[in-house]
Amino acid sequence: MNLENLFSPKSIAIVGASEEEGKVGNVIAKNILNLGYLGEIFLVNPKYDRLFERECYKNLNEVEKSVDLAIISIPAKFVAQEIEKNADKIKNYVIISAGFSETGEEGKEREEAIKKIADEKELNILGPNCLGFIIPGLKLNASFAGGMPKEGNIAFVSQSGALAVGIMDIAEKEDIRFSNIISIGNKMDIDESKILEYLADDEKTKVIGMYLEGIRDGKKFIAASQKVSRKKPIVILKAGKTEKSQKAISSHTGALAGSDDITSAVFEKCGIIRAENLGEFFDVLNLVSQTEIPPNGNVAIITNAGGPGVLATDAFLERSLRLGEIDEKTKNSFRKFLPAESSLENPIDMLGDAREDRYDKTLKMLGKDKNIGSIISVLTPQDQTPVAKIARKIISFKKKTEKNISTVFIGGKRVEKSVKKLRESDIPNFKYPDQAVTALNSYYKWSRERNETAKNVEQIDIERKNKASEIIAKVKSSGRKVLYFEEAGKVMKMYGIEPADFWEYGEDLNLESVKFPVVIKVDSDKVLHKTDKKGLILGVKGKEELKNGAEEMKNNFGGERIIIQPMLERQTELILGIKKDAIFGPVVVFGLGGIYTEVLRRVDFLVPPLNIEEVKKNIEKSKIKFLFSETRGQKAYDIDEMAKIILGISQFALENEKVNEFDINPLLVYNNGEKAVAVDIKIII
Amino acid sequence: MNLENLFSPKSIAIVGASEEEGKVGNVIAKNILNLGYLGEIFLVNPKYDRLFERECYKNLNEVEKSVDLAIISIPAKFVAQEIEKNADKIKNYVIISAGFSETGEEGKEREEAIKKIADEKELNILGPNCLGFIIPGLKLNASFAGGMPKEGNIAFVSQSGALAVGIMDIAEKEDIRFSNIISIGNKMDIDESKILEYLADDEKTKVIGMYLEGIRDGKKFIAASQKVSRKKPIVILKAGKTEKSQKAISSHTGALAGSDDITSAVFEKCGIIRAENLGEFFDVLNLVSQTEIPPNGNVAIITNAGGPGVLATDAFLERSLRLGEIDEKTKNSFRKFLPAESSLENPIDMLGDAREDRYDKTLKMLGKDKNIGSIISVLTPQDQTPVAKIARKIISFKKKTEKNISTVFIGGKRVEKSVKKLRESDIPNFKYPDQAVTALNSYYKWSRERNETAKNVEQIDIERKNKASEIIAKVKSSGRKVLYFEEAGKVMKMYGIEPADFWEYGEDLNLESVKFPVVIKVDSDKVLHKTDKKGLILGVKGKEELKNGAEEMKNNFGGERIIIQPMLERQTELILGIKKDAIFGPVVVFGLGGIYTEVLRRVDFLVPPLNIEEVKKNIEKSKIKFLFSETRGQKAYDIDEMAKIILGISQFALENEKVNEFDINPLLVYNNGEKAVAVDIKIII
Repeated sequence: MNLENLFSPKSIAIVGASEEEGKVGNVIAKNILNLGYLGEIFLVNPKYDRLFERECYKNLNEVEKSVDLAIISIPAKFVAQEIEKNADKIKNYVIISAGFSETGEEGKEREEAIKKIADEKELNILGPNCLGFIIPGLKLNASFAGGMPKEGNIAFVSQSGALAVGIMDIAEKEDIRFSNIISIGNKMDIDESKILEYLADDEKTKVIGMYLEGIRDGKKFIAASQKVSRKKPIVILKAGKTEKSQKAISSHTGALAGSDDITSAVFEKCGIIRAENLGEFFDVLNLVSQTEIPPNGNVAIITNAGGPGVLATDAFLERSLRLGEIDEKTKNSFRKFLPAESSLENPIDMLGDAREDRYDKTLKMLGKDKNIGSIISVLTPQDQTPVAKIARKIISFKKKTEKNISTVFIGGKRVEKSVKKLRESDIPNFKYPDQAVTALNSYYKWSRERNETAKNVEQIDIERKNKASEIIAKVKSSGRKVLYFEEAGKVMKMYGIEPADFWEYGEDLNLESVKFPVVIKVDSDKVLHKTDKKGLILGVKGKEELKNGAEEMKNNFGGERIIIQPMLERQTELILGIKKDAIFGPVVVFGLGGIYTEVLRRVDFLVPPLNIEEVKKNIEKSKIKFLFSETRGQKAYDIDEMAKIILGISQFALENEKVNEFDINPLLVYNNGEKAVAVDIKIII
Repeated sequence: MNLENLFSPKSIAIVGASEEEGKVGNVIAKNILNLGYLGEIFLVNPKYDRLFERECYKNLNEVEKSVDLAIISIPAKFVAQEIEKNADKIKNYVIISAGFSETGEEGKEREEAIKKIADEKELNILGPNCLGFIIPGLKLNASFAGGMPKEGNIAFVSQSGALAVGIMDIAEKEDIRFSNIISIGNKMDIDESKILEYLADDEKTKVIGMYLEGIRDGKKFIAASQKVSRKKPIVILKAGKTEKSQKAISSHTGALAGSDDITSAVFEKCGIIRAENLGEFFDVLNLVSQTEIPPNGNVAIITNAGGPGVLATDAFLERSLRLGEIDEKTKNSFRKFLPAESSLENPIDMLGDAREDRYDKTLKMLGKDKNIGSIISVLTPQDQTPVAKIARKIISFKKKTEKNISTVFIGGKRVEKSVKKLRESDIPNFKYPDQAVTALNSYYKWSRERNETAKNVEQIDIERKNKASEIIAKVKSSGRKVLYFEEAGKVMKMYGIEPADFWEYGEDLNLESVKFPVVIKVDSDKVLHKTDKKGLILGVKGKEELKNGAEEMKNNFGGERIIIQPMLERQTELILGIKKDAIFGPVVVFGLGGIYTEVLRRVDFLVPPLNIEEVKKNIEKSKIKFLFSETRGQKAYDIDEMAKIILGISQFALENEKVNEFDINPLLVYNNGEKAVAVDIKIII
């Protein structure tokens, strides 16, 4: 539903408005009344006839005129009833009140009651348990945080109201400007996905910054963020990395935090910029807010101080961005005005006595160098440095260039005024060099990858889905929870994965057909870790040995099924599987297998649905990418085969939702043309 | 030599003092004359009779009174001569002038000429090409940076003068205080090691912060920093991580940067806190400057805002510090005054309406909880938050506790004044939660590890050294640069490392003594990568196969030496070797071997000299530590055996300086009691 009327209301009712100092309803009323909002305002409180020298309504339904938005700040237990009474007329609500799902069972029930009304009557509800929202462009502060932030192009969405207050205070001091500040609280109705879709179409918003502790609906979030991030950058600070902080969250807002690795994989898939901490979060938002997309990945650094230049260079380690090569022509032009001791290589060191003319000319020459996409101007305020004059030169250069321009003026009072001037001319300044590089790298990476997010994903194959379901249903009806290797192999074949050959051990087995050496395995749902329990005999060389081993195993495991597989050459072992994430559903896991799988943790995550190009691109940047290129003493493995297998597993996950656990360990892969083989397949339903 | 007279001079001569605005000699003279320095001052400049309404000497040697320190700011070509003339009388110099080794060959010669005088006459020289130094406690600004920083306990040493200027400006704004600010420039005589030793004894210095681009003498640096870091923390921001930035450095100050991994290993060995960037550098310096060592590794976080609490919790990921468990007794005491919805678990969320009383009581209760060593008080300035009153409560608590106290007041203008008050009471405030945790973790880690730096390292064994030298000398005299497996094995045995059995192939070989299956290898200095050039045949099962294979190999390699080794079971393969670092000399490398060694890069570095405890401790935190504990399906490998082998290699490196390259690849290790075996040993001289 359209959130236009909620976030740009022509009329607002404040339910629970109050003149009593210290009450939330008092702060909200004053914010809406006094900060310049031009729409109609209705105050509602049964206790008063007049409030703030205005009419006060006893009940919301007494307001005869149309109300675009009602802000509710009354005790939790009265909220549902208040909304229900007005739901036919008023469609948009902000519930400020706390006392809902964040507090336990009773609160949860209250929240569900409201949710039901909202669904029935098609209401938009922000909150409950939120700070409200602020739209500086409308001079509308519909929150209980004081003040009016400056108008700008950053939309800031926060799952923590208290954090939003701190950030607004920082923003005031550092001149950070907003299109929207929205506190989403318990996200009962309007969640991060709905907000994203709303902000995608909000013309005043250039970049969306979100502080999230949880994600309500993984699939909706993926769909929304993929769509939105093609249009504008989404920067998310996602809290809850450690187990301890996940605990802190659930006692805090009742959000269910997913595993952090998977969150990262989802963000990567959706083109979301993940900020590692609050500092990075602000840095990226500021940079995107004030500058345009870098036209290419080459950066030039100019500096009047060698040390900071070196520090900036260090910050390029493992980035998509590079320090660009300076064109010979450009270097020659530098020689005409830079002292002989200058460094003409990137970072370009114009020396400590550089004045505005050196900055100016160097910038102009770089401006003509097409190889360079971004320029970071570094400065330390030495006694001979005319800081203000240099800032002016950078500002006038910025007006004439397409390149991405930012500065790192390292200092305090000596640079303060100039930094402000730079900012006013849309040149972001960073306190330290690494911050500039990190932020620029995020912006650039987003611009490169945003159109890569898959549009045409592999579809569900109903026929195959039904066939697989049939096999699984049969297993279930036989009382088992684990598929036999034979059954699992059949399913795998449907998804393009070849199981190892096998023979079932028993009276029917023709020993002449067995090619030695072989492996004997127990094939039972009661023995999941075969090596731990002697359910596995390797290197069986002949018939007698086979018979004895198999019989002994049969005895040991009380007549369970025994299978025999050929001993296969182990060149490279991979592990593949599905992890069911509470938020995002099934996630494909793939990586290096073998004895040290768990220690080395060389695994990556891919979130279905996928298509073959997306899978290939992800293999190419995965932790096993080295397998797929020729290196010393190693022929490349077949990336197309690998991509098909991973896509097969992704489809298997989507088409078999009842499967609880799944892995192939090991999948043997070869670089000599032989096909990959799944030696062990665990499907638990 | 004692640097006391240099950094606390009773009299100073300024050679090149000038009244001409814009000249370096002008700024220095004014700084020393006008900022409150109480010692005697002599101005020297042949052009003037009087300067700044004082006598001006034509030459330094005309000054009759004793001069503790001469500051030289005259053109580079005159400096050597000026010092030589005065070297008998004046022992301490600061050479501000540039134009030395940083500019090329001619400058290098100039620098060497001065170095020679300095060594002969036992002079102390700071610079050349430096900013000078500042001792706020003496009101002495002997630099050409303006202003007088506040007096404090941080010694800041910078290899970049320009960076020091920027940092001083930041410090002024943020109220950071210094005992010393020293620009070391080209480090011709006084380098980072000498400065460390001086500052270790400087009573006004509690913490040493260094910005370094290179390290002049690796061995001296290790010795000095190990000694000093036991006494006080050393925080180093070491620039030059990437190849590009190493380039930038060498064009900048001519410093030779070592490999960054090895730098990290050295810092770890020496108990040095490595700051990753300028932000971290300041954060650690501030924290150490203002607080005492955390009595234990458990931290409590208290907050009036859930979000920032969660972010703080995230910052504990992979730290030595932990979020502490709150004692049941403490929790019970919380229940008496915190609202029911508060979180009593760490992070302790006192809710958004927390006023000074909740902060006060919560702090007091935590003060009694012995399990907690540090407390971080987080706050966002919500409308109901009395920021100043809360700050006062924290300040009065700090006065009565032994715990480490810091704050994270997230905001701008609303918290500004309180942050200043906190700072004045030695409570460091951090802008964002992760900064507090990172800094505190560094301080704590240093306090735990500082006494672990090895005091009694393994000594050189002269007899063994001579024996090994003899073998190597023989190889050399035979015209080879690579030792045969037999020779290398003999050397290895001296250092406690067992080479694999072998037989030399030839007429003397008794085929009956060979135990099959075996491996045939060419053993030649001309074939270093055996697998690449077919110099290796695996799995040879019988005499005929052996003969044919060996003869063919002999033909292929023009009669080179051929050896035979038994096929050994490959359970776990390690790689061990020595990397010769340009700065720190030989460094022991050890890690996981096998085909993916280079891809997985699971290697660690250890810098000799070592002792057995240090080696063991490092194995326990190395990337192969998982081998030495029992895990699912794996018995532990023998850490004592491993430690002895690594110590052996360390001694081998120290006793055989002529060895240019050395590695064992693979070393086969076992967890079944069998001894480790070196299968391939490469010693290149």
